[in-house]
Amino acid sequence: MSDPLVIFTPSGKRGTFPVGTPILTAARQLGVDLDSVCGGRGICSKCQITPSFGDFPKHGVTVHQDALSEWNSVEQRYDDKRGLIEGRRLGCQATVQGDIVIDVPATSQVHKQVVRKEASTRPIILDPATRLYLVSVDEPDMHEPTGDLERLKRALENKWNINDVESDLKVLHQLQKSLRKGEWTVTVALHRPDHGPQRVIDVWPGFFEGPLYGLAIDLGSTTIAAHLCDLTTGDVLTSAGLMNPQIRFGEDLMSRVSYVMMNPGGDVEMTNAVRAAINELTETLATQGDIDPKHIVETVFVCNPVMHHLLLGIDPVELGQAPFALATSEVLELPASDLDLTAMHQSARVFILPCIAGHVGADAAAVALSEAPDQSDELTLVVDVGTNAEILLGNKEKVLACSSPTGPAFEGAQISSGQRAAPGAIERIEINPVTKEPRFRVIGSDLWSDDPDFTSETASTGITGICGSGIIEAVAEMRMAGLLDPSGLIGSAEQTGTDRCIVDGRTHSYVLYDGSAHDGPVITVTQGDIRAIQLAKSALYAGARLLMDQMGVETVDRITLAGAFGAHISPKHAMVLGMIPDAALDKVTSAGNAAGHGARIALCNRQSRIDISKTVRAIEKVETAIEPKFQEHFVNANAIPHKTDPFPTLRSIADLPDVSFNQGSGGGSGGRRRRRSA
Amino acid sequence: MSDPLVIFTPSGKRGTFPVGTPILTAARQLGVDLDSVCGGRGICSKCQITPSFGDFPKHGVTVHQDALSEWNSVEQRYDDKRGLIEGRRLGCQATVQGDIVIDVPATSQVHKQVVRKEASTRPIILDPATRLYLVSVDEPDMHEPTGDLERLKRALENKWNINDVESDLKVLHQLQKSLRKGEWTVTVALHRPDHGPQRVIDVWPGFFEGPLYGLAIDLGSTTIAAHLCDLTTGDVLTSAGLMNPQIRFGEDLMSRVSYVMMNPGGDVEMTNAVRAAINELTETLATQGDIDPKHIVETVFVCNPVMHHLLLGIDPVELGQAPFALATSEVLELPASDLDLTAMHQSARVFILPCIAGHVGADAAAVALSEAPDQSDELTLVVDVGTNAEILLGNKEKVLACSSPTGPAFEGAQISSGQRAAPGAIERIEINPVTKEPRFRVIGSDLWSDDPDFTSETASTGITGICGSGIIEAVAEMRMAGLLDPSGLIGSAEQTGTDRCIVDGRTHSYVLYDGSAHDGPVITVTQGDIRAIQLAKSALYAGARLLMDQMGVETVDRITLAGAFGAHISPKHAMVLGMIPDAALDKVTSAGNAAGHGARIALCNRQSRIDISKTVRAIEKVETAIEPKFQEHFVNANAIPHKTDPFPTLRSIADLPDVSFNQGSGGGSGGRRRRRSA
Repeated sequence: MSDPLVIFTPSGKRGTFPVGTPILTAARQLGVDLDSVCGGRGICSKCQITPSFGDFPKHGVTVHQDALSEWNSVEQRYDDKRGLIEGRRLGCQATVQGDIVIDVPATSQVHKQVVRKEASTRPIILDPATRLYLVSVDEPDMHEPTGDLERLKRALENKWNINDVESDLKVLHQLQKSLRKGEWTVTVALHRPDHGPQRVIDVWPGFFEGPLYGLAIDLGSTTIAAHLCDLTTGDVLTSAGLMNPQIRFGEDLMSRVSYVMMNPGGDVEMTNAVRAAINELTETLATQGDIDPKHIVETVFVCNPVMHHLLLGIDPVELGQAPFALATSEVLELPASDLDLTAMHQSARVFILPCIAGHVGADAAAVALSEAPDQSDELTLVVDVGTNAEILLGNKEKVLACSSPTGPAFEGAQISSGQRAAPGAIERIEINPVTKEPRFRVIGSDLWSDDPDFTSETASTGITGICGSGIIEAVAEMRMAGLLDPSGLIGSAEQTGTDRCIVDGRTHSYVLYDGSAHDGPVITVTQGDIRAIQLAKSALYAGARLLMDQMGVETVDRITLAGAFGAHISPKHAMVLGMIPDAALDKVTSAGNAAGHGARIALCNRQSRIDISKTVRAIEKVETAIEPKFQEHFVNANAIPHKTDPFPTLRSIADLPDVSFNQGSGGGSGGRRRRRSA
Repeated sequence: MSDPLVIFTPSGKRGTFPVGTPILTAARQLGVDLDSVCGGRGICSKCQITPSFGDFPKHGVTVHQDALSEWNSVEQRYDDKRGLIEGRRLGCQATVQGDIVIDVPATSQVHKQVVRKEASTRPIILDPATRLYLVSVDEPDMHEPTGDLERLKRALENKWNINDVESDLKVLHQLQKSLRKGEWTVTVALHRPDHGPQRVIDVWPGFFEGPLYGLAIDLGSTTIAAHLCDLTTGDVLTSAGLMNPQIRFGEDLMSRVSYVMMNPGGDVEMTNAVRAAINELTETLATQGDIDPKHIVETVFVCNPVMHHLLLGIDPVELGQAPFALATSEVLELPASDLDLTAMHQSARVFILPCIAGHVGADAAAVALSEAPDQSDELTLVVDVGTNAEILLGNKEKVLACSSPTGPAFEGAQISSGQRAAPGAIERIEINPVTKEPRFRVIGSDLWSDDPDFTSETASTGITGICGSGIIEAVAEMRMAGLLDPSGLIGSAEQTGTDRCIVDGRTHSYVLYDGSAHDGPVITVTQGDIRAIQLAKSALYAGARLLMDQMGVETVDRITLAGAFGAHISPKHAMVLGMIPDAALDKVTSAGNAAGHGARIALCNRQSRIDISKTVRAIEKVETAIEPKFQEHFVNANAIPHKTDPFPTLRSIADLPDVSFNQGSGGGSGGRRRRRSA
């Protein structure tokens, strides 16, 4: 009789094996992705499989009930102790007895796909740089004297075929005790860098199940946002953010660089501040996630170039002046201890994505990793909105990148009633084009402000200000309601026909909410707010336009809004404002915090770390600061939505009244005067 | 006309080159070893060569006076500034004009041979792991944004063909400033480990001539001895020693291990103490050598296993009990900062030689590197005498190794009048076999004590005690003078016929020097001293004998006495004592501090670091503690020179009176009774 046939699903891999072959062995020989930490000892349960019985005409086999060996004592013990899902077997214990079809559930795959909550074209294939391996180490022998470490290495080579391993000195300090406590069986955490030997990070006595954790940190100028991820599932356990404490040295990047120029040693102060904040954030995440922070063995950082240098302890002054030279641009793989990140595992490793250029940082590289314009057929514009906007334009053929200094207006700074996105902040706004009356929603409630229950529902938070997405909607709605002319002037009460437009010095403001009757704030959109938003959106649009020039196109196929608050921006309002080029609304999507997601990809999948270096090297960099056309694009983009670009798609779906409130050219007429061009 | 012929001496390499080819270029193409740090810019002067003119029938050429280009402005400038030796040219400036014979002086060779002061079979070929390279780095360019580090790497690749380079984060902190201060020309120190990428250790603006320095440290249980070496010449600038401060925790290794067992955290105390001492020693050497300690970029350590673990911060308790398991045995290459060695360069690297076994350390490996028994035709016994003796026996076929716990008696400890080798210590002794009167020499004077000027010459130091080599000579001379019987008993005044043998409790002592008349010490050799020396020498001899058993030989061809005080031991006296096997005196030589010299070899020649791992792996380890025959050898070796081994060569040159002072078997007879066997 010939050897039984073993068929694995979903891979479809198949082969014949002698009776008695463990399923794990068969899987390995066929290259089927079946996990195992303990290497087949029935301890780790990672190799669970589900046998299928009956007729399988598709595969051409019939599987009998006795096609696998009987449930053995190891499986029984495991089931008693931890419980095995009905129908599951341990792949290392169950052996082939006849033709069999074996399903490998997703949870038993090493390279399982991580389900992403947000809509995305790119799932993460789990393959973290740090993994656990159970090994039995030979006991020391006076006749063959070798070190414990050398015998550990030999065990890794014999059992796991891993033959180029180095160890941290810190591990050597604990190695002897772990080996003896585990009676010469230990679980080793091995970190595999981009190139070079693997590194022993830690050694636990006996079987250590883990999980090990990693942090994906988006280190922004204003906010430090971090995900705590389980490295064996790829899941985000919890997320947290913290204000960047460097804000006290300067609100934006250039003011921080100036601080260093004016205050020798200021870079060291800022470096210490941000590292302390990351330690604090690490503790916070561990507490939130109810884990031991010392089980965090990896951290991936994405950040702009100035934050990159300040994190590394490199003077950022060169980044403040042409030619904006980076000290180093390529990926960095470092011990966390080099960055004083002491809250995590003592041998934790840090990976920092590459910088694209002196103004286009590792955050932009992370966006490229997350949104992958280089793998898109459609010409895609990716805009990461923040204090500095990172802009990518490209497709499979070519990708261009630049950054544009939008300033902090989109984050609610420099706005009279601006605030961070927190409960009580106005985030959605509609203005009735006839009555000019607004209604709005605040963070923390799903009700609109004209709902009878709105007041009671928002009583606890109050109505406290306008967040970034709220100010964009406010300005766009004012423009559509004829309260704001294309040049960005707010009309008077007479001009607009609503007494919500009040005199504010020599200009006008629009009253969005008057809470003064019950000691609440008066929330207005002032002329100054409009100017701040105009500067920010002009910079953004000019950057995108510069890349389109470089690419030789007038339109793009798809626009992705990324950034912490990109998810909350209404595409229509963004287009009315003229933040982004004209496009069909269904082609404008949000990617949420793409930089943070890129960090998570790099954390969970080590191949992506290698890929991103190639991707970044292939990206063509455009330096906005030295392109003469940038200034021209910037000036033209000041109008709302634009002085010269026609925005035909937008005009087909939105009414943009052609008013002018310039006092010299029609002030006091009170009317909505039609003009040829907006 | 055909291209001119260029002949290099002493290599004899030759080739034809077009007129105008720089000599450095010709040398490189032919693989002639001609140094250059600046890569041919006429800055470093490392490529100096000496042209020869006239008829060279041996080479078949006639060299005319115009065979090289004329002295140029670069050479003139260099000569004005620094002075060029008469007849020398700069190899990068002088170009080929006709047939020419070029001598490369030793100082212009990269792999020059380091002259060793002590007699030795093995010179050091200079090839340090850390070298300097001058490079011109491209300036940053906004259109091609790359980091300064990446452009530095590119320059190293283009100019020096070095393409796998990593950088310390600490270097990145200084890189920008160095590049700009040097106007994009910098000197890079690159460290090349055993395997893996080279590492940027430092970057200096412009041309940095060096030299860089290294330390070769022999970290002993009692003494820490270090050489400060110039890495560009291999010369030892200065040497210094320090007591190992761990002595306060225990005199010998086992008492230090016990200290850790009894005092949790005691290992950390000892680690901190020894690291602080090394920092102190580094400062001392830098001061002595008048160099900047921050120019010390490499340190090589050799040490026994317990010191090895304590230096690394590893608990040594496992080394105190069978199976004497090392935490790690292979070579280690670490940042000096991992060992808190802060006195040297911040990115200095440490190399530690491999341990051979739990009792046979990196010091024995260093002895193997220095004395190379594995490259000897003669069967060589190498004995490194210290608190623990390391013993190697072998030849080209096979090398065996063991260690033997001799205790500190040979270093003057446990000896009633023992002291360290310092001025005033008795180091040489002769006893007249007829009169039984001694004469001696002390360290600090070349006169014997019976010289009329001896007292005045030694007035400043006094006569203070007996050092290690002195006690060996004293015991051997007492034996030859018939004051001591083969069993190790000192005879009484009656038995020996000299009143220098005085009663000392129930035993006798021999008065070597009586300074009591002028308030000096009475220096005696007591029965207890004899017993301590007997124990030490028995352990040493038994170890050597065990290796001879294992090798299947009764005699060896050559004996090398190594160790800090090995140089001072008289071979004849050592053999009378029975420390070492019987051999022709001219085959017993001293190697001085062979372990320290091995450290210096590893410091100066990186290939030796790779070779020693292979050598150590091939050495057969013999564990004295578990070999039953060791005890038997030990007991038999207690007699002076030996109970059973005949020592025929020794007996042909030395008179060994066959006396017995055992009170029960002839005490009081006062005679020198002949017995059959000694």
